[in-house]
Amino acid sequence: MNNKTIILKPNEIPRQWYNIAADIKLNPPLGPDGKPIGPEALAPVFPMNLIEQEVSIQRWIDIPEEVLNILAIWRPTPMIRAYSFEKALNTPARIYIKNESVSPPGSHKPNTAVAQAYYNKEFGIKRLTTETGAGQWGSALAFAGSQFGLDVDVFMVRISYDQKPFRKTMMETWGGTCLSSPSDTTQAGRNILEKYPDTPGSLGIAISEAIEAAVSDKTGKTRYSLGSVLNHVMLHQTIIGLEAKKQLEKVGEYPNVIIACAGGGSNFAGIAYPYVYDKINGKEIDIYPVEPEACPTMTKAPFVYDHGDEAAYTPLLAMHSLGHNFIPPPIHAGGLRYHGIAPTLSQLINDDLITPVAVTQLEAFKAGILFSRTEGIIPAPETNHALAYTIREAEKAREEGKEKTILVNLSGHGNIDLFSYQKYLNNELSNLKLDDEALEKSKDCYKDFPEPEILKSV
Amino acid sequence: MNNKTIILKPNEIPRQWYNIAADIKLNPPLGPDGKPIGPEALAPVFPMNLIEQEVSIQRWIDIPEEVLNILAIWRPTPMIRAYSFEKALNTPARIYIKNESVSPPGSHKPNTAVAQAYYNKEFGIKRLTTETGAGQWGSALAFAGSQFGLDVDVFMVRISYDQKPFRKTMMETWGGTCLSSPSDTTQAGRNILEKYPDTPGSLGIAISEAIEAAVSDKTGKTRYSLGSVLNHVMLHQTIIGLEAKKQLEKVGEYPNVIIACAGGGSNFAGIAYPYVYDKINGKEIDIYPVEPEACPTMTKAPFVYDHGDEAAYTPLLAMHSLGHNFIPPPIHAGGLRYHGIAPTLSQLINDDLITPVAVTQLEAFKAGILFSRTEGIIPAPETNHALAYTIREAEKAREEGKEKTILVNLSGHGNIDLFSYQKYLNNELSNLKLDDEALEKSKDCYKDFPEPEILKSV
Repeated sequence: MNNKTIILKPNEIPRQWYNIAADIKLNPPLGPDGKPIGPEALAPVFPMNLIEQEVSIQRWIDIPEEVLNILAIWRPTPMIRAYSFEKALNTPARIYIKNESVSPPGSHKPNTAVAQAYYNKEFGIKRLTTETGAGQWGSALAFAGSQFGLDVDVFMVRISYDQKPFRKTMMETWGGTCLSSPSDTTQAGRNILEKYPDTPGSLGIAISEAIEAAVSDKTGKTRYSLGSVLNHVMLHQTIIGLEAKKQLEKVGEYPNVIIACAGGGSNFAGIAYPYVYDKINGKEIDIYPVEPEACPTMTKAPFVYDHGDEAAYTPLLAMHSLGHNFIPPPIHAGGLRYHGIAPTLSQLINDDLITPVAVTQLEAFKAGILFSRTEGIIPAPETNHALAYTIREAEKAREEGKEKTILVNLSGHGNIDLFSYQKYLNNELSNLKLDDEALEKSKDCYKDFPEPEILKSV
Repeated sequence: MNNKTIILKPNEIPRQWYNIAADIKLNPPLGPDGKPIGPEALAPVFPMNLIEQEVSIQRWIDIPEEVLNILAIWRPTPMIRAYSFEKALNTPARIYIKNESVSPPGSHKPNTAVAQAYYNKEFGIKRLTTETGAGQWGSALAFAGSQFGLDVDVFMVRISYDQKPFRKTMMETWGGTCLSSPSDTTQAGRNILEKYPDTPGSLGIAISEAIEAAVSDKTGKTRYSLGSVLNHVMLHQTIIGLEAKKQLEKVGEYPNVIIACAGGGSNFAGIAYPYVYDKINGKEIDIYPVEPEACPTMTKAPFVYDHGDEAAYTPLLAMHSLGHNFIPPPIHAGGLRYHGIAPTLSQLINDDLITPVAVTQLEAFKAGILFSRTEGIIPAPETNHALAYTIREAEKAREEGKEKTILVNLSGHGNIDLFSYQKYLNNELSNLKLDDEALEKSKDCYKDFPEPEILKSV
């Protein structure tokens, strides 16, 4: 019997998160006046205990027991050696898959949803609002809300809302509420609906709606929750990479290559940041965040100050951005349709510590089908982007005749995304192209903002 | 941190299946002449190596390495202590959940699908045909086929085919083919379509179609595969209970009560038979298979000789049966809509070793919602029946003030069944009633068959 799965015992779960802000330089978020904002500026949006984490530069932060108790439903997650996938690719590379799809909502998202729900509950909050693209984040927060008795209202990007009715059901099964975004329940939503009644929606719009719904609640008991991009979200995800390290150690391996898809950056951060720490400290690793060619935030967009949302409610963040009012083509990887990317991840690009790459939608689904037919697990469309690039690396290893250890984050399963697989199997999908004109025009939206400094962390 | 999850190491996976046929008496299957059939009568339908298992009375049967290597994708499966569910029920009972939902197709079904695909491959078979109700079995066999390079054709009960298009996508993603049953590709299907063009279909019809498609293939390279009922299928599922035993031993527990839903009986057999062995050898345990009131095979149907399929292609099996041409109401637990139940399970009822019970559809979904909101995992509609009865037992324990250890098999997740959850959440589900007249009439279909002996095994 081969050693297919590498597991950790329940008591081997990491007890601390790794905070990359301790080890890199970051441009500060700016307020409307162009000056760095203080923590208090975020108080209407987030509870103060999470704001403290957002601005913390402490390297290791304890995971509360209450959070560990809920993570224990599915963590530590298994790691599998993808023997059959390797064989199909005829590669000398050893491919290890960290399987984050085993959580109840089916992705890595609850790692931070549970933590955020916990801190909000501790702070006396009763209701959370959020946005969701593909639905992974919204259902994760609904799940986390059910664990802590919090109400959860989710604004779901319209195209996903229409394509994935089951995600709404999932949220409702956990007691949450799901609205199609843009909705008529917020000013931000109404403004967009008036201008573009047929819009497929975007994460930027949905974030605006969710922030507005939170800050406009006069009881003061509602806060907003974000599923990616921000420092504290990246922080909560590092449990993935910290577990992966322990698992690879058990089989005497250390990765040469790390691959994960990146929309806002959170599953990438989860698996990669603990290894970026090693890289800063001298280890040689190639680390690849993978995005869709249809929404090339990392590979084509400049490093600028821009808002995180369409209605410009958020502070200005220093990040690669396609422009906060850019609406990407309706590819089926809804979680990768964000105009920006995490400031920490953007900084790692500036630092040359990671190497962004892009693949097409069809290349991604082709990889997902091969993975399904070899390793059994049907990956999320987002995850397929990571697998597509893994195939390129595995083929390179074959061509170069090099043994390599590749670590890939399987950020989620595709069981709720089978609509898109059916489209692919019916040959009804194409490589949606960027609207270059719209892209160019969207750059106007940040041209008057201050320029971030190009910092070097190492 | 509490001990939420009980895991086994990969090398703790059981290496043998438990064969209950070694420990109980069974009426033999009969041929069209009313006489016991020999193994050769089944040769056009199954490969001889599986027929040997079907008739084996050897107590322990080795699991082939090739099967273990594929089971290792998701086995050993975790067991969770349902602390939050217990708390919500305010019960002194300790509830342990064996989580079979973590397999790629999302249920216990691949435990036997992988074994059956392996034995067929070994025997030189190239293509498998089968039926599926809710879609769990069909997708499990498509998955298993992809692992061994076998073609898989699945006849899916029409009502489920229409309600669950994603199951078809799942099968196709793994390279299988899925047809709505009754179909016009078989004589059995055409006969039904002519008489009842609007039929919702039934497992009995779909089985007939799949058998016909297998035996009519003149190349001799096609066989039929059944996902429940038969002895060898029950055998392959016992890995569940054998793992569960090891897991409960790790926390110093032995169950007082075992609960699993039962359609054909395979997930029930999986968790329960290794404990039935203990019970035969003197242990006291209450063991409950749970069925829907709308399809009360165990609780209302007599123990008779009847066919396993609508078109009477199968031998006569000694089992509780509602009549092989009975079409149960279209409840959403498609896997529990079978007219019969495993002969081994039927015999255990005769032996008073297990106690069948029935719950309604609404009681089942109510339990599923409570479980989702406490333990996070959204169960399959079939599994909800087991959870509904678990609630009854937990409440009984509270009323009696008794500590109890309850072991429940979470046979599958409901992520592909969210359509039915949405119906429930919208108050659009009802407790579909049996058509008593149709039920009475269906008894005619077995009245001329021989009567089985009422045997006592212990």
